[in-house]
Amino acid sequence: MERKRKPISRLRGLMSLLESITFNKAGLVPAIAQDAESGRVLMMAWMNEEAVEQTLATGFAHYYSRSRQKQWKKGESSGHVQQVVEIYLDCDGDTLLLKIKQTGPACHTNRESCFYQQQQDEKWVNIEEPIK
Amino acid sequence: MERKRKPISRLRGLMSLLESITFNKAGLVPAIAQDAESGRVLMMAWMNEEAVEQTLATGFAHYYSRSRQKQWKKGESSGHVQQVVEIYLDCDGDTLLLKIKQTGPACHTNRESCFYQQQQDEKWVNIEEPIK
Repeated sequence: MERKRKPISRLRGLMSLLESITFNKAGLVPAIAQDAESGRVLMMAWMNEEAVEQTLATGFAHYYSRSRQKQWKKGESSGHVQQVVEIYLDCDGDTLLLKIKQTGPACHTNRESCFYQQQQDEKWVNIEEPIK
Repeated sequence: MERKRKPISRLRGLMSLLESITFNKAGLVPAIAQDAESGRVLMMAWMNEEAVEQTLATGFAHYYSRSRQKQWKKGESSGHVQQVVEIYLDCDGDTLLLKIKQTGPACHTNRESCFYQQQQDEKWVNIEEPIK
């Protein structure tokens, strides 16, 4: 989303992008964040319309916190922001995939990825330690 | 999940894996399927307990169809099955990541990935044609 265009034209563009997304009954859409360089899947979180809009408008990932019931910029307190490189919408229009450039660890446990528990036989095994 | 163990021991293992997963109010958990070789994210779908169990027990991805209200083996009619290579659970225990070996296209539109609509300025642009 270029930011030098006139407001009305820019807003029309954002509206058009948002209108193609199917939000669920709670007004949310799941968004997968994938490291644009390594291809590693880092996390999955939810966005409301406002979070999608802010993501598109700023170029940084915003999500909706279901526990705090508000949208937030990823990394706003930790500094672990996600710069958006590319955004994809799936065939049903109800899931987003963000290719991002991650600053610091993506996971609130301080691990690079939230997917650090691997199934090994009948156990979920931690395969990654928090970054010190 | 090895399949040569005695039933009770094997079932206990499956139970233990399932108990660590937080299903939502509808009894579902989102599962991301990623190509184990290319790293491309292919699709996101939902699993109920039965689908997770069948995935673990058979080594092939099973999902839950919200429209048909039943669990199904991915590719059961199309032949486009997903052989599970690795499974990960995220920090909150409420999202699964499957690294899979995909036979044929993953998307029901016959595209390799469901994420074929890329945001370019104010449009979602098809970046991939169906496989003929």
